[in-house]
Amino acid sequence: MKKIGVWLIGALGSISVTVILGSLLLKKDMSHSTGMVTETEPFKGLKLVPVEAMQFGGCDIRNGKLYETTNQIVQKNAGLDPAVIEAVRAELAQIERNIYPGTSFNCGEAIGELSAVSGERGKSLREEIEEVVGLINGFKLSNGLDEVVVVNLASTEPLLELKDYHYDITALNHCIDKNLKNSLRASAIYTYAAITSGCPYINFTPSNGALFPALVQLAEHNSVPVMGNDGKTGETLVKSALAPMFKDRNLQILSWEGFNILGNMDGQILDCDENRQSKIKSKDAVLGKILGYTPHSQVHIDFVPSLGDRKTAWDFIHFQGFLGTKMSLQFVWEGYDSALAAPLVLDLVRFAEFGHRRGEAGLMPHLASYFKDPIGVDEHGLHQQFDMLIDYVEKTQKASKA
Amino acid sequence: MKKIGVWLIGALGSISVTVILGSLLLKKDMSHSTGMVTETEPFKGLKLVPVEAMQFGGCDIRNGKLYETTNQIVQKNAGLDPAVIEAVRAELAQIERNIYPGTSFNCGEAIGELSAVSGERGKSLREEIEEVVGLINGFKLSNGLDEVVVVNLASTEPLLELKDYHYDITALNHCIDKNLKNSLRASAIYTYAAITSGCPYINFTPSNGALFPALVQLAEHNSVPVMGNDGKTGETLVKSALAPMFKDRNLQILSWEGFNILGNMDGQILDCDENRQSKIKSKDAVLGKILGYTPHSQVHIDFVPSLGDRKTAWDFIHFQGFLGTKMSLQFVWEGYDSALAAPLVLDLVRFAEFGHRRGEAGLMPHLASYFKDPIGVDEHGLHQQFDMLIDYVEKTQKASKA
Amino acid sequence: MKKIGVWLIGALGSISVTVILGSLLLKKDMSHSTGMVTETEPFKGLKLVPVEAMQFGGCDIRNGKLYETTNQIVQKNAGLDPAVIEAVRAELAQIERNIYPGTSFNCGEAIGELSAVSGERGKSLREEIEEVVGLINGFKLSNGLDEVVVVNLASTEPLLELKDYHYDITALNHCIDKNLKNSLRASAIYTYAAITSGCPYINFTPSNGALFPALVQLAEHNSVPVMGNDGKTGETLVKSALAPMFKDRNLQILSWEGFNILGNMDGQILDCDENRQSKIKSKDAVLGKILGYTPHSQVHIDFVPSLGDRKTAWDFIHFQGFLGTKMSLQFVWEGYDSALAAPLVLDLVRFAEFGHRRGEAGLMPHLASYFKDPIGVDEHGLHQQFDMLIDYVEKTQKASKA
Amino acid sequence: MKKIGVWLIGALGSISVTVILGSLLLKKDMSHSTGMVTETEPFKGLKLVPVEAMQFGGCDIRNGKLYETTNQIVQKNAGLDPAVIEAVRAELAQIERNIYPGTSFNCGEAIGELSAVSGERGKSLREEIEEVVGLINGFKLSNGLDEVVVVNLASTEPLLELKDYHYDITALNHCIDKNLKNSLRASAIYTYAAITSGCPYINFTPSNGALFPALVQLAEHNSVPVMGNDGKTGETLVKSALAPMFKDRNLQILSWEGFNILGNMDGQILDCDENRQSKIKSKDAVLGKILGYTPHSQVHIDFVPSLGDRKTAWDFIHFQGFLGTKMSLQFVWEGYDSALAAPLVLDLVRFAEFGHRRGEAGLMPHLASYFKDPIGVDEHGLHQQFDMLIDYVEKTQKASKA
Repeated sequence: MKKIGVWLIGALGSISVTVILGSLLLKKDMSHSTGMVTETEPFKGLKLVPVEAMQFGGCDIRNGKLYETTNQIVQKNAGLDPAVIEAVRAELAQIERNIYPGTSFNCGEAIGELSAVSGERGKSLREEIEEVVGLINGFKLSNGLDEVVVVNLASTEPLLELKDYHYDITALNHCIDKNLKNSLRASAIYTYAAITSGCPYINFTPSNGALFPALVQLAEHNSVPVMGNDGKTGETLVKSALAPMFKDRNLQILSWEGFNILGNMDGQILDCDENRQSKIKSKDAVLGKILGYTPHSQVHIDFVPSLGDRKTAWDFIHFQGFLGTKMSLQFVWEGYDSALAAPLVLDLVRFAEFGHRRGEAGLMPHLASYFKDPIGVDEHGLHQQFDMLIDYVEKTQKASKA
Repeated sequence: MKKIGVWLIGALGSISVTVILGSLLLKKDMSHSTGMVTETEPFKGLKLVPVEAMQFGGCDIRNGKLYETTNQIVQKNAGLDPAVIEAVRAELAQIERNIYPGTSFNCGEAIGELSAVSGERGKSLREEIEEVVGLINGFKLSNGLDEVVVVNLASTEPLLELKDYHYDITALNHCIDKNLKNSLRASAIYTYAAITSGCPYINFTPSNGALFPALVQLAEHNSVPVMGNDGKTGETLVKSALAPMFKDRNLQILSWEGFNILGNMDGQILDCDENRQSKIKSKDAVLGKILGYTPHSQVHIDFVPSLGDRKTAWDFIHFQGFLGTKMSLQFVWEGYDSALAAPLVLDLVRFAEFGHRRGEAGLMPHLASYFKDPIGVDEHGLHQQFDMLIDYVEKTQKASKA
Repeated sequence: MKKIGVWLIGALGSISVTVILGSLLLKKDMSHSTGMVTETEPFKGLKLVPVEAMQFGGCDIRNGKLYETTNQIVQKNAGLDPAVIEAVRAELAQIERNIYPGTSFNCGEAIGELSAVSGERGKSLREEIEEVVGLINGFKLSNGLDEVVVVNLASTEPLLELKDYHYDITALNHCIDKNLKNSLRASAIYTYAAITSGCPYINFTPSNGALFPALVQLAEHNSVPVMGNDGKTGETLVKSALAPMFKDRNLQILSWEGFNILGNMDGQILDCDENRQSKIKSKDAVLGKILGYTPHSQVHIDFVPSLGDRKTAWDFIHFQGFLGTKMSLQFVWEGYDSALAAPLVLDLVRFAEFGHRRGEAGLMPHLASYFKDPIGVDEHGLHQQFDMLIDYVEKTQKASKA
Repeated sequence: MKKIGVWLIGALGSISVTVILGSLLLKKDMSHSTGMVTETEPFKGLKLVPVEAMQFGGCDIRNGKLYETTNQIVQKNAGLDPAVIEAVRAELAQIERNIYPGTSFNCGEAIGELSAVSGERGKSLREEIEEVVGLINGFKLSNGLDEVVVVNLASTEPLLELKDYHYDITALNHCIDKNLKNSLRASAIYTYAAITSGCPYINFTPSNGALFPALVQLAEHNSVPVMGNDGKTGETLVKSALAPMFKDRNLQILSWEGFNILGNMDGQILDCDENRQSKIKSKDAVLGKILGYTPHSQVHIDFVPSLGDRKTAWDFIHFQGFLGTKMSLQFVWEGYDSALAAPLVLDLVRFAEFGHRRGEAGLMPHLASYFKDPIGVDEHGLHQQFDMLIDYVEKTQKASKA
């Protein structure tokens, strides 16, 4: 069995810890694969790598012990008996040795305050990138891995204003050579390092600075598949399942208001205005793209500490039907964010490794259903996106038989 | 322009009146086609009959004036200025002349009590059928119509226990000849009459006695297209849009509880146990068909008079994700039933006429998205059903070009 | 310090176990008194017995170990770390020795099925009563208790149709002497035994057979305070807080529809029609009593196993204001039933002991705020009932100073 | 019968128009007094002026015809048949003659933009006040009124930062004499004019600049009763009914998040940050005052034009009970703002006139239940406030009998 490394940026965060814990429990048959799309019928014949083949490492800007962090996170998640952690305590200790200090370079104040070390370490951009390359390669070599997939699960960065050089890899390289510090945030340093190390890369965060067009070009040149942005786990997931219903039934959306409250670290960072803008932006496009017009719509995200890892959203949808009749649909979503995200991360690692194995390079549009803002994909309807994934599966299976 | 008759069973009910009023206002450019699926992009090239071509008639078991009934219904619908009715008062009076007394034969107590005349008129089944045939033909001849489509919009009948002869038209004819009264409810009398008059037929109600297999055979023999059962307008519509999301994401539904409250005549009839069973049965199958397993699920329907034509549903969906985490989604739907149903009725008339023109006979499975319990169709996912409709459109357009 | 026994009927049920566990944790300073009304400011000077003084015993119709049951219940309650149970394992084992087999005499099928022993043990009514008297006295003697308070926390019995002899203790005694078995359900056997043993008695269940007028007379004769019925913990609590708002503001309630879903043993028993009637009846009176008129109102209770000890209620309140404007208020209550009930049970034990000490006999109307259907009290508004409790506190304090 | 003038600031706004229309319909027995507290039992013996005795006038910064405005407002309110307006068309025309241009002096941009005339008319503060005095007196004389009550129903002004001179009438008079323009907003000009004209005054708006301490002193000196601020009609009403339940039951509020969406002019003005602050501030104090501690709490107000006069609020209340169990209560309020406010305005006019007749001067704390931020009253619990009103009624009735 091939050994697949999964290198997590933000390895001590809720989602990463849930990914790791879940994988360990799955290997021991102590939990189920519920929530993993790749474990359902249509993907049975696809020869994706098994979860058992995955080994975890990564980096985090915070100091922290993986076992203790796991304990804290399980306490906030209503579903799990804390006792199970003991069964994987040894494995957690071993994985912890593969987690290194990360960078919060140019990430803004909210993230900077979380960081155990200063965001500004006096290194040039090239040096920052090289350092990450070193970490990834070290992880691969020391664990005897056949492949490493890099996944960004770090906190949301402030919105990056894109300049011309963010659209052209040659121009971007020029900026990096000139050490133009404002051109990159930490997330781009990781992406650049991953791609140049030949690692498939997934941006599961809303940070728009993590996978801009120049970096997609870099991926194409380096023959690695990449995809993002922003895992679609909750309110936007439901939105993308419901909005096509209104469109297909020719019901006119008048207003779609969304209020999100959440209590974890994600929420704490999003409580900061500049970071929240990234998130709201990636949630925002969905409606217009699905409906073909832009109704009145506001999305609020509030930090409510008592909720822990729970995320609650109230959406109010005001719509108009025949004879001008006004009606409404409201929904309340109550999910545990990490439990929703983690199985998707495992899916994405499998698809990224699979794509790399098949020689895919650049964007993976067939993964659109996983993202709030799927790069390069205009289709935002959930079921339509899911059809794209099924089409991909069918094509690759035909190809492999041919 | 061809003249298309629309013969409504239950012509003085909320939906019928909304269909008629809406059509008249559309003809005068006093309202919009919002809510009509056939007015959206994919159907533009299909050469469906225009609403302007439709002329209305039908029957009802209640006495009642169309203008007064329309007034009452508009009062209960929040969207419409009652003044608009004056603009179509003359047209309403004319249509009223095409509305005849209907039959409540073998329809149970709740419906019987609504009826202005006794359900049992001492006629044989053949005579009952012939009477309806006479009404439909009279409507066609006296209005110079090219085609008549019959739509069942009457109150929900009690569940009919299906016997062997309901599955075989020869056996059924035998029963009718022997005047076996319990073999048919009023709805079947209408269906039989419509089909033998060469009229396409739509069962928009939950009544399972309206379009059982033997009647579908009759439609095939008579080369008329038919479809049912039970228009999908509210809670079940949302359910069929959301359930596939859970399935595709491999999230396990633990329980899906639905509570419906409504205040119109439909609600009053459904307040009666034997009638409610028909409705609940047609709502019930959806989940199991979509998910592939049957979660705990109960559907309640309560009559709440103060709501008028408004229908409110609360659905509580309890589901399980990764690591056994329990989460929930709730939704509250607040719709005006007739305003949701009426544009779909216009759509269905158009498709039925179109199918007849194209030589289709028997069931129209491509219309599955319109029905809670689409006869002969196993697919219950809304978007999958909508894809079936789009496929149909594409095939017929190719065919017409070839 | 006086030693107060608390004898729980249904001692292995969720509420009892939560009462016991909570008390043990409070004694060890491992939890807080949140939820106990008697721990708030207005009751500080009242000299109620401390929770530390309470010792627990009781009976249950099921076999079961207290530790194991506690474990199961904690797993279903999202708030508690299962590890805390270990800290009180020894105490649980000791309490278990005070829990004896109970009777399900004349309790109907649903409860009978839970019972480890047959409901019909061939004993006369007098013998059944004497057996319970023996258990209570044994508990008191063997634990050296100064007082025993009996609390009914057993499953809801089917509604008892009250006859003339249920209103007169002499007539009732006559029935018992004649061994007229249908005259009493198990709950009345307990109540009769408690009162004649000189123990204050609380009926926290909806069972109307537990504390009918003849038994209140018995309590008056024996100088013991009693109160019931049906602890007000969730939907009805909110209802009784909100309904006065509509009344005081002269807003007309058109309909108040309530849907309750719950997953514990309580729910399982209430899934049985005859038991549910008791519950719905005790929930039902509230609105009419508060508003002075009876709006359209239905209360549903459904058993949804996946919810565990969680109880969710959706209430839809349709109301009319100035100029006939129709408006609505909806609420969704998501509570853990036992966690809501247990602190109230501790409150009631304290008030019952206090009343007995003060020489009160018969009903305790000042405890109305604790009950959905407070016997002998017409006031159903929550705040008005709470004012009654505050008045009582003030009067008793004045009395004790005088 | 005495003739009571009601002089409305913002006379063409939704609430004013609903007050006027409602009164006219009540006089003609074409509507009900639902929503008027003073029409319920406890106030029957109080000899308040009848609605029939009221005559309306006022001012508005917008140009507009009363009939047309009434028509528009009725269209947005689901409850009313537009035809009824015709029945009072003549009366509306007559009232319109008593509506004069108002001032938007120092009211900020959002309100300024609504104004038909410039906020800055080159007059001194004294001249502005005199002008309003002139209007009020003109209204009184020309209509032969015995009394005039002034009610502020204008749009919410930006928060006024209170200085020392806002707390002392002598210092304030000095500022006015010196024409210190920033010391007053339009609302204070009206209040000053009303009080010095001997008119009782009600501030139904959140504008904190309308009735600050110096103006209350002025009212005391001039022997007129006054009260404010901010009519309690929706979310805060429910909040003040529910929060005491949590306090009395010793349930710890962890977070109380409120999201309000509304579509009328009020919403449009509140969409402007500086105006919204006034509103949020007056909604904010409630929880802390009731609970005795300040839980995490945010209040959002969003303008959603499609809602018209409808106001929808979702509140999420996260709380903790026994054994640390976390639970929640959510509510969704869907009200028509003007229909909720108008009957309260009629109540307040009656109480203000009654107080003036009885010789009351300065604040009317017994009216606390009507206001989100009742000046000079610490009690925020709805039922406790209502008890204050009942106490007042009982005392005044005793006094009148003595």
